[in-house]
Amino acid sequence: MNPKHPSESLTVLTDLVLPSETNHLNNLFGGELLARMDRAASISAQRHSRNVTVTASVNHVAFSRPIPLGSVVTIEAKVSRAFTTSMEIFIDVWVEDRELGTRSKANEAIYSFVAVDANGQPVQVPPIVPETELEKQRFDAALRRKQLSLLLAGKMKPADATELRALFVE
Amino acid sequence: MNPKHPSESLTVLTDLVLPSETNHLNNLFGGELLARMDRAASISAQRHSRNVTVTASVNHVAFSRPIPLGSVVTIEAKVSRAFTTSMEIFIDVWVEDRELGTRSKANEAIYSFVAVDANGQPVQVPPIVPETELEKQRFDAALRRKQLSLLLAGKMKPADATELRALFVE
Amino acid sequence: MNPKHPSESLTVLTDLVLPSETNHLNNLFGGELLARMDRAASISAQRHSRNVTVTASVNHVAFSRPIPLGSVVTIEAKVSRAFTTSMEIFIDVWVEDRELGTRSKANEAIYSFVAVDANGQPVQVPPIVPETELEKQRFDAALRRKQLSLLLAGKMKPADATELRALFVE
Amino acid sequence: MNPKHPSESLTVLTDLVLPSETNHLNNLFGGELLARMDRAASISAQRHSRNVTVTASVNHVAFSRPIPLGSVVTIEAKVSRAFTTSMEIFIDVWVEDRELGTRSKANEAIYSFVAVDANGQPVQVPPIVPETELEKQRFDAALRRKQLSLLLAGKMKPADATELRALFVE
Amino acid sequence: MNPKHPSESLTVLTDLVLPSETNHLNNLFGGELLARMDRAASISAQRHSRNVTVTASVNHVAFSRPIPLGSVVTIEAKVSRAFTTSMEIFIDVWVEDRELGTRSKANEAIYSFVAVDANGQPVQVPPIVPETELEKQRFDAALRRKQLSLLLAGKMKPADATELRALFVE
Amino acid sequence: MNPKHPSESLTVLTDLVLPSETNHLNNLFGGELLARMDRAASISAQRHSRNVTVTASVNHVAFSRPIPLGSVVTIEAKVSRAFTTSMEIFIDVWVEDRELGTRSKANEAIYSFVAVDANGQPVQVPPIVPETELEKQRFDAALRRKQLSLLLAGKMKPADATELRALFVE
Repeated sequence: MNPKHPSESLTVLTDLVLPSETNHLNNLFGGELLARMDRAASISAQRHSRNVTVTASVNHVAFSRPIPLGSVVTIEAKVSRAFTTSMEIFIDVWVEDRELGTRSKANEAIYSFVAVDANGQPVQVPPIVPETELEKQRFDAALRRKQLSLLLAGKMKPADATELRALFVE
Repeated sequence: MNPKHPSESLTVLTDLVLPSETNHLNNLFGGELLARMDRAASISAQRHSRNVTVTASVNHVAFSRPIPLGSVVTIEAKVSRAFTTSMEIFIDVWVEDRELGTRSKANEAIYSFVAVDANGQPVQVPPIVPETELEKQRFDAALRRKQLSLLLAGKMKPADATELRALFVE
Repeated sequence: MNPKHPSESLTVLTDLVLPSETNHLNNLFGGELLARMDRAASISAQRHSRNVTVTASVNHVAFSRPIPLGSVVTIEAKVSRAFTTSMEIFIDVWVEDRELGTRSKANEAIYSFVAVDANGQPVQVPPIVPETELEKQRFDAALRRKQLSLLLAGKMKPADATELRALFVE
Repeated sequence: MNPKHPSESLTVLTDLVLPSETNHLNNLFGGELLARMDRAASISAQRHSRNVTVTASVNHVAFSRPIPLGSVVTIEAKVSRAFTTSMEIFIDVWVEDRELGTRSKANEAIYSFVAVDANGQPVQVPPIVPETELEKQRFDAALRRKQLSLLLAGKMKPADATELRALFVE
Repeated sequence: MNPKHPSESLTVLTDLVLPSETNHLNNLFGGELLARMDRAASISAQRHSRNVTVTASVNHVAFSRPIPLGSVVTIEAKVSRAFTTSMEIFIDVWVEDRELGTRSKANEAIYSFVAVDANGQPVQVPPIVPETELEKQRFDAALRRKQLSLLLAGKMKPADATELRALFVE
Repeated sequence: MNPKHPSESLTVLTDLVLPSETNHLNNLFGGELLARMDRAASISAQRHSRNVTVTASVNHVAFSRPIPLGSVVTIEAKVSRAFTTSMEIFIDVWVEDRELGTRSKANEAIYSFVAVDANGQPVQVPPIVPETELEKQRFDAALRRKQLSLLLAGKMKPADATELRALFVE
C-alpha cells in the first residue's frame, strides 16, 4: 500500500455550540464534545484507510477550558500514525473570538480507530509519512502511547516497551 | 470599514450523516441539511461581520441528489456579497466517495444574514472584494438576486431593477 | 388524474419552541424552523400526490421576526400549484400571543417537492384548482417563480419566460 | 370568567415519524408519542387558560396499534373539562394511509394540566361548555375520572365519589 | 413458567436533566420524563419476560413537583404484577439534593407492557411473587387498576369488577 | 473532610440503545457512549464531592465490542481515587442478553473530574477509602495513571514518577 501524508486525512468540523449541547453552567457539555470529536476523527480515519472504521479507544482528552454557549468551535482531526490495522488520530479543538477573529486552543484529544471490512474484520491501512515538525513529533509520541496502552492492558512486558523504558532508564 | 475577501469568511463543516438525520428512505433529511447549512452560513456571516448575525432569508436551495446514511458531507460557506447591513452567503455541499476519496457536488444554497447589535438592531458590515473567478461571478449575480427578491416582495419597481431588466430588454 | 383543491393538502403543525431549538439569543433557530417547515411541506405534498415525495428546492424563505422560546408556532402548508411531477408548497408561519390569543404572521416560505415511485423516479401528480382569492394569487405567482428558477438555472431563455418578461416589457 | 367551548382550545399537530423517533421494531417509540402528546396538550391547556400551564398527570393512554416509521401522525388535543385551576385534555391520535388518504385512530390519551402564574402558583381557569355529542360525553366522563383519581390517591372517600359509586350501586 | 420476584426486574436509570430536556420554566419537560420512564419500564418488562415488549398503556402518572435543570434524577422501575401476556410496571422517580445527598420522591407512574414474539403476537409471561410489604400492596392494587381499566374501556361489567365493587359496596 | 467509600458514589444508568444513537452499522455510536459515560461519571463525581463538577480529562476508553441497536446497556460509575480537588472515575459498561438475562462486559473507561465552586474555582474533595479487592486495585493503579498523565503533559519529571518508574527499574 502506498504511504499517505497526515494532511490527506485532515478533517475540519466548524460548528456552533447550541443550547441543546450545553450543561447547566451554559458551557459545551463534555460528552457532546467527545461525540463531535469522535465523528471528526472517524472521518479522518476513513479518509486515510478508505474503509469503514470503528472507534477502538479514546486516550488523553484534556478539557483545559470551558467553551461557552454560542461559541464557534473548530475541530481539526488528522491521522498521526498508522499501525497495521489501526490508526491514531490527533485532534485539536479551537475556539474563535467573535469580535477579534482570533482563535485559541481549547482541547486536545487522541482517539484510535480500526479499519474494518464488511464483516467487521480488521483490514490493513496504508503507512503514514509525517511532513511538518509537529506531525513528526506526534508520529514519534504515538509509538510511546501505543506501548503504554499495551503495557497498561497487560499485553506487553515493561522490558519490551523500549520507547517508554528509555524515559526512565538512561 | 476595511473591505474583506470572501476567503476570510470561509467556513468548513465536515460531518457524517447519522441515522437520526435521515428520512425513511435512509437519505439525509432535507430539513436537517437546511439546518446544517444555516449553522455554517451563520458562522461565515459572523466571521465577515464580527458581529452577531441572524438569518434573514433562504433562497435557491436545490436538492439535486439524495445523500445516503453514513456519507461524509462537507459544507463550505463563504460570503459572496455584502450590502449595507446584510450579507449573501453562498453554500456548496459536497459528498465524498469513501473508497475512491473523490468528492462530488450535492447541493448549492444561498442564505442571507443580517448583522445585529446587542439590541437586535442592524449594524453595518464591511464591503467585500471578490478574488477568484467564481467569487466574481457570484458577487455579480448576488445583485440580480437582491433586486429580484426586492421585486418579488414589492419593495422595488421593475423599472429600477436594472440588472434584472437587462436580462429581458436589450 | 382528477384535479384537487389546495385545501385537500392543508397540513397544520402546531408545536412549542423548546430550549433545544433556540439559538443563543433564545429565539427559534433558523435552521430548526427550516426543518419543521420541510416536514410540514412534505406531508402536504404527500397528501396531494398520494406518493412518496422528496424536497426539490427551497425558495424565498423570509425570516421577518424572531420567535422567542416558549412560543406556540403554527405552520400551515398547502400545495399552491402542481406541475407535471413537482409541486410548489406555500407555507405560512404564525405565532400566537398567549395572553390575548391573537396570532400574527412570522414567516412565509416556498418549497418544491417531487413525487417519486419506489425506485426514486419522478411520477405524475394531479393538477390543482385554486378556490380562494389568495390561492388563486399564489397559483398565478407560482408560474412566474417556476420560470424564474429555470431562468436562473440556465434551463430557460429569457425570451421564453413569458410571465416574467411581462413584468419588464409591456 | 366567561365560559369557553372545547373547539377554542383545539390544537392540531401533524408531523412525520422520523427514524430518530422509532424503536428497534421501526415503530414510533411509546415515549416519543407521550412527549408529542404532552406538547400538544400543553398548548391546548394554554389556549383555554391563557396562562402558563404545567402537566399535572397523565391517565389512560392506550397504545392500541403500532405506528410505523414514515407515517403521518395527527394529534388533536382539546380541553374536555375545566375544574377550578386544572383542565382535563382529551387527545386523539390518527394515522394516515398515504395511498388512500384515509385516516384511522391509533391512540387516545387523557392528560391533566394546571394553569400557573409567574410564581408557579395555580390560578383559576374559565369554565367550559361542551357543544358536540362527543364533547358532552367526554365532559361527563371527566368527572368520573376526576373522582376516580382522587379516590385512588386516597383524597376522596368511596361514599363521596357519587358518579363512580353509581356505576356499582344502583 | 417459573415465577419471578419484582426485584429481578428492577431497573435503575440515573441521569442528569440537560438543557435540551427542559421547558421554558427551566424544569424537566413532562414529555421528556414520560419518555425516560417509558424506556426504563420497557427494560423492566423485558427483564421479567425475556422477550421483546411494547408499551400497552400509561396510567396514573402524577407530576407532583417540578424537577429543575441540572438535577440528578433516578428512575426505578419494577414489575408490580404479571397477567397472562401483560405486565404492570410501577415506577418511582427520585430527585437528589446535591449538597445534602438526600433524595426525595418526585413522581410515580404506572405503565403496562405486553410481551410479543418476532411477529408482534402476544406471548405468555412468568407469574410474579411479591416479597416486600410495598411490593405486596402494589401487587394487590394492580388487580383493581386492571379491572378499572377494563371497566372504563367497556370490556368488563361493573358486576364482574369484584375488587373495585368491594370499594363501594360492603 | 470525612473520607468516603467508592460505593457511596456508585451511579447506575441503564438505558436502551435507540435508533438515533447508532452508526450506520446499527451499533451504538462511539461518541454517544462517550457522552452517556460522561453524564454517569459526572453524577458519580458530584455524589462524592457534593459540589458541581466538570470533566477534566478522559483516559483509557477501550471499545472492545460493538453494542447493537436495541441492547440494554448498563453503565456503572464509581469514584476510584480522590486527589486534592480532582477525582478519578472508573466506569464499567455492561450489555445484557435479553433471552438469557446474562450480562457481559462491553467497555471500561476512566474519566477525571474537578469539583468547582460557583465561580468555577476548584474546591477540595473528601479522601476515599477503597473497600473491595477490585476497588483497592483501581485505587492503586489510579496513582500510576495520575503520574503518567502528568509525565506525558510535561508537568512531572520521570525521576519523580515513582510508581511508574518502579515498573521499569527494579
